[in-house]
Amino acid sequence: MDILNWSSLDTVARTATLQRPALSNDSEKAATVAAIVAKVREAGDAAVREFTAEFDGASCSEFQVSPEEANAAVTQLSPDAIAAIDLAIRNVSTFHTAQLPTALTVQTMPGVQCERISHAIDAVGLYVPAGTAPLPSAAIMLAVPARIAGCETRILCTPPRPDGTADPAVIVAANRAGVKEIYKIGGAQAIAAMAYGTATVPKVNKIFGPGNSWVTMAKSIVAADAAGAAIDMPAGPSEVLVIADAHASAEFIAADLLSQAEHGADSQVLLLTTSQKIASRVSAAVTAQLKTLSRAAIARKALAHSRLIVVEDLECAVQISNAYAPEHLILQVEDGRSWLPSIRNAGSVFIGPWAPESVGDYCSGTNHVLPTNGFARAYSGLGVDQFLRHMTVQELTVDGFVGIADAVMELADLEGLDAHAAAVKIRLESLQ
Amino acid sequence: MDILNWSSLDTVARTATLQRPALSNDSEKAATVAAIVAKVREAGDAAVREFTAEFDGASCSEFQVSPEEANAAVTQLSPDAIAAIDLAIRNVSTFHTAQLPTALTVQTMPGVQCERISHAIDAVGLYVPAGTAPLPSAAIMLAVPARIAGCETRILCTPPRPDGTADPAVIVAANRAGVKEIYKIGGAQAIAAMAYGTATVPKVNKIFGPGNSWVTMAKSIVAADAAGAAIDMPAGPSEVLVIADAHASAEFIAADLLSQAEHGADSQVLLLTTSQKIASRVSAAVTAQLKTLSRAAIARKALAHSRLIVVEDLECAVQISNAYAPEHLILQVEDGRSWLPSIRNAGSVFIGPWAPESVGDYCSGTNHVLPTNGFARAYSGLGVDQFLRHMTVQELTVDGFVGIADAVMELADLEGLDAHAAAVKIRLESLQ
Repeated sequence: MDILNWSSLDTVARTATLQRPALSNDSEKAATVAAIVAKVREAGDAAVREFTAEFDGASCSEFQVSPEEANAAVTQLSPDAIAAIDLAIRNVSTFHTAQLPTALTVQTMPGVQCERISHAIDAVGLYVPAGTAPLPSAAIMLAVPARIAGCETRILCTPPRPDGTADPAVIVAANRAGVKEIYKIGGAQAIAAMAYGTATVPKVNKIFGPGNSWVTMAKSIVAADAAGAAIDMPAGPSEVLVIADAHASAEFIAADLLSQAEHGADSQVLLLTTSQKIASRVSAAVTAQLKTLSRAAIARKALAHSRLIVVEDLECAVQISNAYAPEHLILQVEDGRSWLPSIRNAGSVFIGPWAPESVGDYCSGTNHVLPTNGFARAYSGLGVDQFLRHMTVQELTVDGFVGIADAVMELADLEGLDAHAAAVKIRLESLQ
Repeated sequence: MDILNWSSLDTVARTATLQRPALSNDSEKAATVAAIVAKVREAGDAAVREFTAEFDGASCSEFQVSPEEANAAVTQLSPDAIAAIDLAIRNVSTFHTAQLPTALTVQTMPGVQCERISHAIDAVGLYVPAGTAPLPSAAIMLAVPARIAGCETRILCTPPRPDGTADPAVIVAANRAGVKEIYKIGGAQAIAAMAYGTATVPKVNKIFGPGNSWVTMAKSIVAADAAGAAIDMPAGPSEVLVIADAHASAEFIAADLLSQAEHGADSQVLLLTTSQKIASRVSAAVTAQLKTLSRAAIARKALAHSRLIVVEDLECAVQISNAYAPEHLILQVEDGRSWLPSIRNAGSVFIGPWAPESVGDYCSGTNHVLPTNGFARAYSGLGVDQFLRHMTVQELTVDGFVGIADAVMELADLEGLDAHAAAVKIRLESLQ
């Protein structure tokens, strides 16, 4: 990997260095996805069946995972794998349960009571991609907060394998995390089926989960339609930024960079370090470690647009990181915690040598569905919140109403909204 | 207004009755809006100046409201109007301050610490429309939570009047609610200026506020662009649903329906009542009260697609309301609070005879930016939350890491992600 020196770069070069890989804006694919969504909306299960045959090469008479398939899935996993799934579910549950909001009741004025009440979204749809790797961890990260929020209908779609079955680890993880309805449907057809409902698949109010460009485009389409479904957050390629000082382990850093790079060819990994020596060692270690990886070809593509950057000091590194707003930020510096108050824009932060990104990806307890592509400037990662809605309530006593009445009428007058004032006046008159 | 009897309607008729007015899907207008956004992004202030002359008929040499204009605005308001603005700011501040989340720290396992930290979004843009009425209340509802969240850059755009000034009440409300930077820019050009920044207008990370179809379309465009800005929520016409029993006041109900109907021709108002007599009286009262209103022409158009519906019992009314998911729900029934636990989908609820919708629109303390068009099924109204982001953090002790290491490697194996396992393995080996 090339090593750049930040202080020797001009503004244009700096911007180019932090440029994320451009997302393809494929209008032909967008039209195809729109057609798939429209057809599933219109023809329901028949269209889903057709697209499943076409895209997944699977012929499914029944989309739903049967109790038999679910039982068989358990037998295909080792006890250690099941124990690991359970540990992940436990930790993610612990952290997400702590996020549950409490109801608020506030007297804003004597006799004027305002409340905020949280409700789970009634029906949610979870999407777990298969693609280059089946992702039981994604099933956990989506299903656990949905269960803790209390969403009544929780369904999950995941693409079938060519033999018509679903990945057993995804089935087991989803089941154990409280999702009993699993449909073997993938891609844009899964998103459309959940957004509009079919004879088999219940309609949901909000769709969560990662996916490829087909899934992402379909999610945008249904989110823009009031008759469709809301979505969790905008998608983008995964990314990590590591800040390291001279005390860091080059081997650990290289391993963390590679664990991000193996996600996909469009992943981006960045190292900002105050040490030229660390930069050189990381470069060498990446090359060495890469040789042992089964997904080296994917990682190599991601590394092609990734950067090792030497910076003057850690203040500068933090400043660059805040401007970049990484999905994952690893602080491999002495007393990493002391830098935390300076971090403003990041999805999830990993402090110190013993918090590799893969811990958060799987089972520390934090959610791994995080804002990428700079969206951390305005979006949060997934939490219980996104499975809830807040409803406000107001109730006034007669005295409370009388006390606020003049202000309401004044403000209505300022806006020229007579009927708003009249609704107050007619009540005041009734009291005379 | 026509009175319908719910039990005599078949399923098709019921669906038609609750149908919201269709939103126009004007592809020609969409292209125009896209062109405006693109031009402002490219040409900045010059483009804003051109569109301001074209659409607002105003020639602005300076977009920003000057201290002189702000001082002059104060003198144009009565002391009572200023007191009403201050009361609204106080109540909205009280309720929104109570919403501030506390930081979370959770040990999910011994030595595995997960945290959630909330940060204000650095820069937010607030849009306050002028249109048929200037809306100082919108300035309050947007500016107060932005200030309480702690957003460092808070700017507000509002259309200029033909003489180049902004509405004085909007200026005063914004200033007193903590927004000092006000730009006299309206429509799609305002949204583009805030999303991309110009020489004059700072770029923001998220844009909030209501607007007409031009504003709404521009918000969708910039939200879909990673280089643009996030937005608060999807827009739709305002609406109210009133549930009333025989004890309710027909006069109060009529006044509440009209205060919603005067918002715009596309507003929708619904009454669900168990009493045929109340339905008839409301119909008569609406006709009578309508005569006195300055915005009767607008209200009449809204009433044309609004409904008075007689239902068998309150359970049925609540069921219909939950399916409709109104922006505003007024419970004019005996012991309204006892029905609150049954209400699932609504933006804001108004309980009892002394909580007209206009109280919440202006100054009870709740936010009046609420999900319309059925979006209450998946979205919350505006609160401090939407001006914040949650960032998660994890830090592990050596022992914590060792305790979780096997589970991480198991899960990585299940997903075939070698590098994820290797990042753990290399650390374990370093301990030997």
